[in-house]
Order: sequence, then structure tokens, then C-alpha cells
Amino acid sequence: MHHLRIGMIGYKFMGKAHSNAYRALPMFFPDALKPEMAILCGRDASAVREAAERLGWPETATDWREVVVREDIDLVDINAPSNAHKEMAIAAAKAGKHIFCEKPLALNLQDSREMLEAAVKAGVAHMVGFNYRFCPAVRLAHKLVESGRLGTIYHFRAWFLQDWILDPDFPLVWRLQKEVAGSGSLGDLGAHIVDLAHYLVGDIEEVIGLSETFIKERPLADQMAGLSAKGSKKAPRGEVTVDDATLFLARFGNGALGSFEATRFAAGHRSTNAFEINGSLGSVKFDFERMNELEVYFTSDDEDVQGFRRILATDPAHEYSEAWWPPGHTIGFEHTFTHEVLELTNAIREGRQPEPNFRDGVKCQAVLEAVERSIAERRWVSIAEM
Amino acid sequence: MHHLRIGMIGYKFMGKAHSNAYRALPMFFPDALKPEMAILCGRDASAVREAAERLGWPETATDWREVVVREDIDLVDINAPSNAHKEMAIAAAKAGKHIFCEKPLALNLQDSREMLEAAVKAGVAHMVGFNYRFCPAVRLAHKLVESGRLGTIYHFRAWFLQDWILDPDFPLVWRLQKEVAGSGSLGDLGAHIVDLAHYLVGDIEEVIGLSETFIKERPLADQMAGLSAKGSKKAPRGEVTVDDATLFLARFGNGALGSFEATRFAAGHRSTNAFEINGSLGSVKFDFERMNELEVYFTSDDEDVQGFRRILATDPAHEYSEAWWPPGHTIGFEHTFTHEVLELTNAIREGRQPEPNFRDGVKCQAVLEAVERSIAERRWVSIAEM
Amino acid sequence: MHHLRIGMIGYKFMGKAHSNAYRALPMFFPDALKPEMAILCGRDASAVREAAERLGWPETATDWREVVVREDIDLVDINAPSNAHKEMAIAAAKAGKHIFCEKPLALNLQDSREMLEAAVKAGVAHMVGFNYRFCPAVRLAHKLVESGRLGTIYHFRAWFLQDWILDPDFPLVWRLQKEVAGSGSLGDLGAHIVDLAHYLVGDIEEVIGLSETFIKERPLADQMAGLSAKGSKKAPRGEVTVDDATLFLARFGNGALGSFEATRFAAGHRSTNAFEINGSLGSVKFDFERMNELEVYFTSDDEDVQGFRRILATDPAHEYSEAWWPPGHTIGFEHTFTHEVLELTNAIREGRQPEPNFRDGVKCQAVLEAVERSIAERRWVSIAEM
Amino acid sequence: MHHLRIGMIGYKFMGKAHSNAYRALPMFFPDALKPEMAILCGRDASAVREAAERLGWPETATDWREVVVREDIDLVDINAPSNAHKEMAIAAAKAGKHIFCEKPLALNLQDSREMLEAAVKAGVAHMVGFNYRFCPAVRLAHKLVESGRLGTIYHFRAWFLQDWILDPDFPLVWRLQKEVAGSGSLGDLGAHIVDLAHYLVGDIEEVIGLSETFIKERPLADQMAGLSAKGSKKAPRGEVTVDDATLFLARFGNGALGSFEATRFAAGHRSTNAFEINGSLGSVKFDFERMNELEVYFTSDDEDVQGFRRILATDPAHEYSEAWWPPGHTIGFEHTFTHEVLELTNAIREGRQPEPNFRDGVKCQAVLEAVERSIAERRWVSIAEM
Repeated sequence: MHHLRIGMIGYKFMGKAHSNAYRALPMFFPDALKPEMAILCGRDASAVREAAERLGWPETATDWREVVVREDIDLVDINAPSNAHKEMAIAAAKAGKHIFCEKPLALNLQDSREMLEAAVKAGVAHMVGFNYRFCPAVRLAHKLVESGRLGTIYHFRAWFLQDWILDPDFPLVWRLQKEVAGSGSLGDLGAHIVDLAHYLVGDIEEVIGLSETFIKERPLADQMAGLSAKGSKKAPRGEVTVDDATLFLARFGNGALGSFEATRFAAGHRSTNAFEINGSLGSVKFDFERMNELEVYFTSDDEDVQGFRRILATDPAHEYSEAWWPPGHTIGFEHTFTHEVLELTNAIREGRQPEPNFRDGVKCQAVLEAVERSIAERRWVSIAEM
Repeated sequence: MHHLRIGMIGYKFMGKAHSNAYRALPMFFPDALKPEMAILCGRDASAVREAAERLGWPETATDWREVVVREDIDLVDINAPSNAHKEMAIAAAKAGKHIFCEKPLALNLQDSREMLEAAVKAGVAHMVGFNYRFCPAVRLAHKLVESGRLGTIYHFRAWFLQDWILDPDFPLVWRLQKEVAGSGSLGDLGAHIVDLAHYLVGDIEEVIGLSETFIKERPLADQMAGLSAKGSKKAPRGEVTVDDATLFLARFGNGALGSFEATRFAAGHRSTNAFEINGSLGSVKFDFERMNELEVYFTSDDEDVQGFRRILATDPAHEYSEAWWPPGHTIGFEHTFTHEVLELTNAIREGRQPEPNFRDGVKCQAVLEAVERSIAERRWVSIAEM
Repeated sequence: MHHLRIGMIGYKFMGKAHSNAYRALPMFFPDALKPEMAILCGRDASAVREAAERLGWPETATDWREVVVREDIDLVDINAPSNAHKEMAIAAAKAGKHIFCEKPLALNLQDSREMLEAAVKAGVAHMVGFNYRFCPAVRLAHKLVESGRLGTIYHFRAWFLQDWILDPDFPLVWRLQKEVAGSGSLGDLGAHIVDLAHYLVGDIEEVIGLSETFIKERPLADQMAGLSAKGSKKAPRGEVTVDDATLFLARFGNGALGSFEATRFAAGHRSTNAFEINGSLGSVKFDFERMNELEVYFTSDDEDVQGFRRILATDPAHEYSEAWWPPGHTIGFEHTFTHEVLELTNAIREGRQPEPNFRDGVKCQAVLEAVERSIAERRWVSIAEM
Repeated sequence: MHHLRIGMIGYKFMGKAHSNAYRALPMFFPDALKPEMAILCGRDASAVREAAERLGWPETATDWREVVVREDIDLVDINAPSNAHKEMAIAAAKAGKHIFCEKPLALNLQDSREMLEAAVKAGVAHMVGFNYRFCPAVRLAHKLVESGRLGTIYHFRAWFLQDWILDPDFPLVWRLQKEVAGSGSLGDLGAHIVDLAHYLVGDIEEVIGLSETFIKERPLADQMAGLSAKGSKKAPRGEVTVDDATLFLARFGNGALGSFEATRFAAGHRSTNAFEINGSLGSVKFDFERMNELEVYFTSDDEDVQGFRRILATDPAHEYSEAWWPPGHTIGFEHTFTHEVLELTNAIREGRQPEPNFRDGVKCQAVLEAVERSIAERRWVSIAEM
């Protein structure tokens, strides 16, 4: 097997990011299994043709059911809105296709479990799109934890802060509607930092959360519009049915304490996806706005030169970096996806599951749903009870 | 009244900081009521004499009861260990003395309320030592919130991170013993960020917390030792009876969401007392390790030049700064106390209560105790029920 | 004309960067004239075939003379070592091909002038590869200067700091040999900051410089090796014939003062290409290691909130950014080339010269050569005399 | 000898800074020889009395000639305007008094040499006020260089950037008049970074400079006014006779290359006194606006965690720091003077010369004057020829 033929459903923000990754992979990682962009699928025939032309897909379709069963397709890439994930993934699994599904896996835990079951039963590879794991700086953080260089982990704190709906006249797009998006800041932003917590620290045992919808009604608008939609003060308004911000505390299985915050109301933060880990031997700090950097502290440094080091993760010693440019030459957001696709294709070639896979998606969803329950019932909720 | 005669009880870290402030005040704020350092009190006669010589106190005493009733004393400054505050403050109030008491006001809410009552009944001025309010950069943050320049406040997040007991062999000093210190990171560090929350955002309505003592036993040692005590692997060990770290979530009366973290286990953080406030019109960020700076963001900036500004709060436009040095010449930790003493002396001269006063101390204690109760009972606790 | 057929000579670091840009352009800038990667040329037949496979070129050649005259080629992209530029560019011009030539244009001013003359005479489009102009943050700096928002410019200071040859055993690669590279840090790094000075501030009038070769002999090695070659303590040594570091002062035509530094001996700096501009109304700061950011200061800000703003140049208000990802999602080094190719193709379609073109290359070379003369003759050298 | 009786001439910015240092010394460094503030001298009787009251001097005088010969004075502290230093210092030396003189030592090299000669002849201790040497972070930089931990030094670059006269209507104060101030940015700001270069790297061998007076006329005003004087658009104007900005390149005796810049026209920089040193084994960076921090890089760090460490120089391992506050609690500008006075008193007690002393002042003056000559004669000037 030298090629992996891909059928992709969805062509907006994530569709563009995935397409770019498929195209970049053979150039920067020439030894990888080569993704072949076969067919792009979307409901609007002319829009999907325009996207295919731009993104480099030779063929298009409007009915995803046809795509997922095509004989000449090896992998189905699902980046349609969240409420469509489940049905698509299960159909793809039944058709024996490998699956690459954007996060959140589904609107709720039950659905995501069914997706996992279907994929396991079908024996296909399944991956979930937690792309932030694939920053070289995050890989370095993971390596430092895994190898014990930070010692026993005491604290994980993470916050994903954005400000794109701060304006009360920003319209009621699909991401603000529960029936399509599942949840708001929690599922969109919180999901990423929960996955990072799992990846970097380990399993979460129990949680308690707090959330708020600061702006309760917004102008009605094309609900499919994206992050830069324009609202109108005069338009009729509809109810926002998801959370604008969610915070929660957590206790990890290994005894570490966690603090999480996801909000779309942090003025000045376009996309601050940041975390810090404190261990008995050192600490690390990461901020996605400076995604090539990791700050690292070691207690073992000589006593007169102890301090956080700002490491530019572009040296050959940093995972993925040698494939790109010389040290000091940074990469951008989009290449988290290139690395993600590298992991996906490597796993398929090696006959193993990629990481993160649907199990990670389910585990993340369990935490998110525990957070929601803890908010609704105003109590600590154990992940085990989910 | 041109002088304020002071009797001070305690002469360690805070006693040094207060002495320095009394000495600096007339030089930098020559129009202020002049503090006269009259008598220094401590239990160990030779140690207190040595301290008095060094810190500039002409007279010493070993019995605080004598000091608080002396006719030639106008103000009693209490910076003895926390478990002694209550008795001293009440005695000082009864003797009609103004009181400047270090935080935390007392070991528990009930005690702090009795102290407030005694001070109110006596009609004396009472101040509590939340010194971080007095950084020029924090004053600027307060001014921006108060004046509405940040709009409606949505988020307050604060963390006070230290690492001085990270070493498991650091000894069992008084700050690690509940009967002397009241609590650990919560009362020591958390108290400061709770006060900043009150000062900057407003009243807290309800809280839920999480805490941990990571190192449960430590070498026995001189329990009165300070932050830089040395431990021994071989010494017998005793139980740590306070929290090493405490986190909590909060809802403010005005609808803002709060996240708080206090820990002594954050490797690399010598004393990171940091907060961020996000409002509908802008945000501010502060980190005490760079105490002269405030980062400020305004949504109203031109769309191509929106970003956090790093403001060095050393311009004449910044409170207190003109008294010091030319713009760009920073001040240090110690001058938070000079400004605190300025507020104290101004308030006494003007016949008003200084801010923060015992009411603020009680309010802070109520939140801390609610946090403790929320941890013990694993539930949200309303401040109103305290 | 809907396509631009490209023949490219060279396939190492810059060949990879250019290939990537040609591939990315149609996806992110779908309205641009589409580059068609036609033929890749290099001396080593098997190496060039391997590169073509990886980089996406359908055909290869080993004789550049054949490539530049092919009828089916519209543009010749030259990124071979610097000493080959002149002959290739002149041949391409004579064949009526548009030319995209990497910097430095040539080994000396005379050669670069001949290249410009040939291109002008042939009436072809000519571009020189000063890619740093194409960071969105640098475009913003340019816009602020051009529009007068920084007022009269007083100062420009720039430094391009690297550390890749700090190890005395790093081998004698081609970049360290005058006959191939022309000069060392000056031509490699200094050229970029001189071009930025021209772009951002204006013409330089006179210069005086200082340079040094700290390590005068190095192990002989494959001279064609790149930035990450490995040396050997035991290998025979040869003379380093270029500068390790060059500094110079400059006076601009508009009265501004300039300070420039280029070095490969700045430990800890993988690739710090940084500048600052101070004007009567404001300042900007840029550092390529954080290429998505520009720091901006305005004297007109309210007096209590004056400070450098950290602007993440990823908003729709920033040039090129809307084509990429939502605000806060950064791009990397490689996309400076995508923007460069956008300018190149736009210029060709519009029948104008791209910027920067060979005139800018010549102007840069004149300054570099004036710096070299000023060092050799230990005196101020006017650009006019060159 | 347990006390050092001081007569001080001058009571503005530096007089205040010195007074504060004398007062702070016994409290924070109780083992030091105790400075006794005896008499304050200034020409305006009522102003000097007001200052003495505020700064803590028990006696005043208006004739400095009387002060320097008083039997009960051990040390003369000179912080009057620069043009008065020479006469005062020589008179003090003749009277056998130790001397602490602010920088610049004198208006020119010849005068400063006469001052040194007089002090040497008299056998008194002589110190010059290069206070920036006394930041704990700068001491750490010095220690790292001295101990060889940075290896062979290749580069020193320093810039002292201010913006207090950016407004063209800022008045013609004494610092802008050559006959009083000697020079402008060069003597005021450049002197400090030249001294830091001497302290941190070693002797400078030759220099070449460039300077400019951007605003050539300014409103006449009280010429004795300080940094925050107010100008008027309508006032008659006089000529600015000093440099607004001076830059120069230097070659050190040990082969290192130097770049220096001093300006009062860097918008947004209130007082950025910054330097960087690059050696074969590491680098350090310092910026006075964050005076408690030093950034340090070591080539010997493990290859996956190489980066600049941000060191907060407040640990016991950092010179002076243990005398102040616990780790993480910063000090301010003023305590550079406290440390300076500590060195002064220690040297006097130990019968040695303090560092920096008049020899350092002369050495600095020689460089500044060589820079001026290099500008006037447009050529490299060797320090040896001065």
C-alpha cells in the first residue's frame, strides 16, 4: 500500500486545514504513506465544487452516504458540523473505511461511545482531531513529563481564551446553538485542553464546573456562518443555547490538581490556548499564540541560574522540526495538522491505532459531560459514574 | 497632630517591611503625617533589641500587653504570627489605639469579626495589610475598572504561585501548622488574591474549592523559622496540617466568574502573584514578579493595532509614581508598604477609615472560610451563609 | 494568461521554500495567477530527481542553460549558490524569461548591476528574494511608517543574530568561502536587514562598518553542505575567507540614524532577525522568532495607558492574514515565500515590476559593498560613490 | 571607625537617591560602616533647607567650599551639575576627604584626569556613581563572564534609550546645554553603558561614532529644571548644543566587537538601559526596565532544552539579594545606590579603593571623548591616543 485514498466530508475551516495537511505531507515527510485526495463532499453542489477546485480535490459529491461506501476510498475524513459526526462515522466504519473525525467526536458521550464501538467492531483505524498535541513544543512538554524530567506532577492549569463573540451583536451562528454544536466554549475550546490534560498528565478522576452565557440573545443570521460572521443590531434576535464560558476544577488519578477555563469572552485573546504543568523537578508553560515556544524550568539548575528557559522548538532535537526549516525558522498553526496526518498515515501503515483516537475522543467527552452534569447538579461528578 | 507614635509587635519579614515603610514615608511623601517609630515588641529580649537597633526603633519591650496600653503610643502595628492577632488587636482597640494588623486578620472568621467589632466600638482606625493593592500598576487596574474603561467585567482569574516548600525536606515551620497559621497556601497566598478580587471586581457570592497537602510529613525544626529554613533528611518528622495548594471557582455578585489558585508547589515561581480581568471593553493583566507593569487591552483601539499594551506604571499619570523617580525607574516590593502606610496616615489625619480595613479583612476571611467549608463538604458554599 | 510555467534552478533550502510557496498559492490565494511547476534543474541528476519527486516537479534537468531557453517556460527561479546567479539571470533575461532570483543578487555590485541591465533590456519581470518583507507584521510596520502614523523617523536599529557556526569545529561549508558566497554574515544576514531598512525607512546615504572572523580556520568538509553540517576535530583545516560578524552605522537620506549588526556568533539566537524603528509619534519592534507579532507604541495614547502593544498580526485588518486562518492562528516562516510569490504573480499579471525587484537587489548590494569598503579603508563611505 | 560623616553637595534627583541609600544601608546591611548624614549643601538656602528636612539631613550650608574643609566631615558626596564636579572634587581631595562623585566625573577627559590625580595624591577613597553596576542581575552577568561560564566574549551590544525630550516643545534645560552638561545623550546615557562595557567585557581599544541633534532649537526655560520640565510653544527659543542621540561601534582589547547607542528620542522607552553579551559558551541579556531579571543562555544545556533562562535575581545565590526580601520579591532602581554605598563604605573600612572609582571615571571619559573626536573628524579613534 503506497497511497491512502481519501474522501472528505466538509470543506470550511477544518476542511481547508486538512486539505493543506494532505498536500504538505509528501513534501516534508517524503517517507510517509502518501495521502491521495480523491473526493470532496458537501451539501451545496456549487460551493463544494468551488472548494474542491481551490483545495485540490479532483472530484466532488453532495451525498456523503455515497462517498463513505465507495470502493476506491480508504479513509473518510469527517469535518462537517458536530451534529453530523456520529451518523457519518458509523456508516464509514460499517463500510470498512478508516476514519479521521474532527473533535468533538459527537454531541454527547453516548453517541461518541457508539462511534467508538462501530470503529472497533469494523477493525478500522480511527483518529480524532485534537491537533494541538502535534505542536513540536507540546511534544517536548510530553517528552519531559513522560521521561520523568519534571518529576511527580502536582499541578496542571490550562485556559483557552478567545474573544470572537465579545460583541453582543455578533450573530447566532451554528456554534452558538446547542442542537448543532452540542455545547459552546466547553466543547469547542475546553475539549482541546481536556485532551491536552489527558495527553500530558493522565486521567481525570472528578470534576466540578461553573459556566455562564453572558449574552443571552443575539441577532439571527445564516446559522452556518463561521468565525467572522457579521451581525446587525436591527435583526430579530434568538436565544443563545450554549455556554459562553466554562471553568472547572479537576482531580487527576495520579493526585495532581487541575484548573481549566474555556471562554469566548476574554478581550484581547484571539486564541490563547495555554497551559502550565508544575512537577516536583520542574515546570513547563505553553501558549499557542507563541506555538513554537515552550518555557521549561528545572529545579536541578545551578542555584544562581535558575529560571524558565524559553525554548524555540525548532531544533533537530525537537520532534518533527528537522523536516521543516533550519533552527529558528518557525512553523504555523496549520502544521499541527500535517503532523496529525503523519501520525494517521504512519498508524495505518503500521497496523496500529493512531493517537489520539476515538478512545481519546470518548474519554474527553466523558469529562466534558461530567463537567456539564456537575454544573447542572451543582456537585462534584466522578468520571467513573459517566 | 503632626506625628503618629507607633508601637510595633513583631520584627521578622513583615516587621522589617513595615519599619522600612515608616522610614521611607517622610522622605518620599513629605506632606504625609509623620510616623514616629517609638517602641518595638517581641518575646525574645535580645533578638528584639538587635532588631530594634537594625530597623531603627529607639526602645524595645517583651510584653505586648504593656505596649498596647502605653499613653505615648497612637497606633499599634501587629505583625506577630497569625494566631496572636486577635488578642492583640482587641486589647489595642480597648486601649483606644489605632491598629494596623497584618493579614490574615485572624485564624478564622469568628475571630476576625470580633476584632472588627472591637475596633468599631472603640472608634479607632483599623487597617489590614493587603499590601498588593498598593502597587501603582494595581492602582491603575483598579482605576480602569472603576471608571468603566474595561466595561462589564466577565472574568477574573488569579493565581499566587510559590515554590519555597517544594523540597520534601523543607522543615515543618510555623506556616505549615494549622494551630499557628490557620491555613496554608489558602490563608497566606489565597488571602491576597481574594482581597484583590474584592478590590478590583467586587463581592464574591459563592465558591467551591479543592485543596491538597502533597507532602504530608516534614522534618521537625524550629517552628518559628521563616521562608528560608533548612531541613534535614534525618530529623524526625511531624505532620503538615495545612494545605499545600488550594484552588477555587467563584461567582461574583455582579455576574463575573472567578478562578483562584494558591500553591507553594509551582516549581520556578518564586512569587508569582498574578491576575487577569476581562471586560466587555478591555482586559488587564498583572504579575507581581514584574510589579511595575500592567498589560492593558482596549477593544476600541484601531483594528490594525489591537494588542495588549505593556505599561510601565512609573509615569506621573500613575498613582504614587511622581513621588519616586523619573519615568522608567522602577520601584520594588517594599514600597507597596510605603503606600500602605501613606493610606493609613492619611486616613487617620482625615478621620476616615483606611482602605483596606478590618471590614475587608473580615470579608476576605469569610471567603476563605467558605472555601474551606466547600472543600470539607464538597459543595458550593454561599458567602451569605457564613 | 492563466498559468505561469516555472523552471527552477536549485533545490536545497530555498528550493524547498519556493516549491512550497508555489504549491500553497492557489489554495490560499485562489484568485492569483497559478504557478505551474514545470521543471527542476540541478547538477546532480539523481539528487535532482529525488528532490523533484519530493517537491512536486514533474520533470528534471541537469543543464540550466537548456532550461532557461525552453519555450514552455515563462519564469526562471534561481536559487543556486550565489556565485552562479549572474550568469543564469542574464541568460534567462536574454531568453525573455521572467526571473525570480534569491538574494544576494550577486557576489558584487558590478555583477548585480549587469543583471539588472539585462533584465531591463529584456523587458522581463525581475524579483529578488527578500522574503522578510512579506511577514504580515512587517507589512504592518511598513504601513504605519508610510501612513505617517509613526511621524518623522529618527532611528532604525536592526540585528540579525544566529549561532549555527559558533562551534569552532563546524566545517568549512560554501557559505564560509568568499569565492562562492561573496561574503559571510554581511551578505547572508546583513542583506536582509539592509533591505528591510530600505523598505521601511528609505535610502541610506553613508555607512561605516566593523567586521571580524572569530574562527579563522575550520575543518575541511563537503563545501556544498548546508546549515547543519557536522565537522570533525581531526579533519585538516582550511581558511575561513568571509566575515563571521559585521556591524555598521548608517545615516539615512531622510536624516534617520541606523545601526546594523549581522553575526553568526550570538549564542542562543537561532535566527533573531529583529528591528526597531523610533519616530516622533511612535515606535515599532519586530523579532522574526515571533514573526506573527509587532510591538507598536503611539505617543498619542492616553497618558496613563502608554505602552508598547503586542499585536498579533493575524486579524483581517492585517495584510494577507484573511487568506489563512482565523485570528490568533499563526503562520510560519514558509509563508513569507507564499506572499512573495503572490506579489510576483500579481506583478506579472498586472504588467508591472514586483517589489522587491533587481533595483532593490542592486541598492542593497551597493550598501553591502560600501560597508565592505568602509571596513577595508577604515572610513565613512557614501553610497553615492559606489 | 564606626561612622562615616557625610557632607553632600546637591539635592535634586541624585541627591535624593543618595540620601535614600545612606538611610537604607544600616537597616539592610547592618554590618556595614554606618553613614552619618551630616550636612547638605546647595546654593539656594531655603530650597536646601526644605530638601534637608525631607531627606533627613540635620544641617545645611550654601557654600560648598566651607563644607569640604569641615573637620567633622569624612566624605564629600558630589551630585551637583556636571560642570561643578571638578572644582569640588579637587578641593575635597586637598582637604583629605573621601569623595563620592556622580557621573560623568567631569565635562572632559582632562578635567577628570586632574580629579583623579588630586584624589590619588591626597590618598583618599574616590568613587564615581555608575550605579547600574549594582543591580543584582548585572552582578550576576559579571560573575558569569568573570568565571568563564560564558567563554570567550565575541559581542557586546548596549543601548540606553529614553524619550523624555521627544516633544519638540520640551524646554532647553541644563542637560541640553553643553557648557553645563558637557554632552547630551552621550555623557548622560552613553557613559553608563560604556562603564558597563568596561565592567563586563574589558577595555575598549578604538571607536567610531555618529550623532545627531534632531531638534535644534527649544523654548527657553528655567535651565535648572529637571526631567519633567514643561515647555511652551510660545516661548522664545534657544539652541540645543548637545547631541540628542549618539551611536558608536567599538573594538575591545580582547577582540570582542561592541555596538553602543544612546538616545533621548526613542518613543516608548522611558529608560531602557539594556545590553547583551555573546560568548563562546553562552549569552546574557539585561534590560533595566526589568532590572531584577537576567536572561542567560548556555550552549552546554541538553540539546532539547536550550533556551534563554529568565532569572529573577532575588535568590540568596544572587549578590545583595539575601539582605532584602524573600525570593521573588523584587527591589527597585533606588537600591542600586544602596549597594553602591555599601561598596563605598566597605572599601573605606578595608582601606582599598571602591569600584568603580575615579580611574573608571577617567577611563569612561576617555572613551566618550574618543567618540566625540571620531564624530568630529569622521574617523576611527584609538583610546590610546586620548
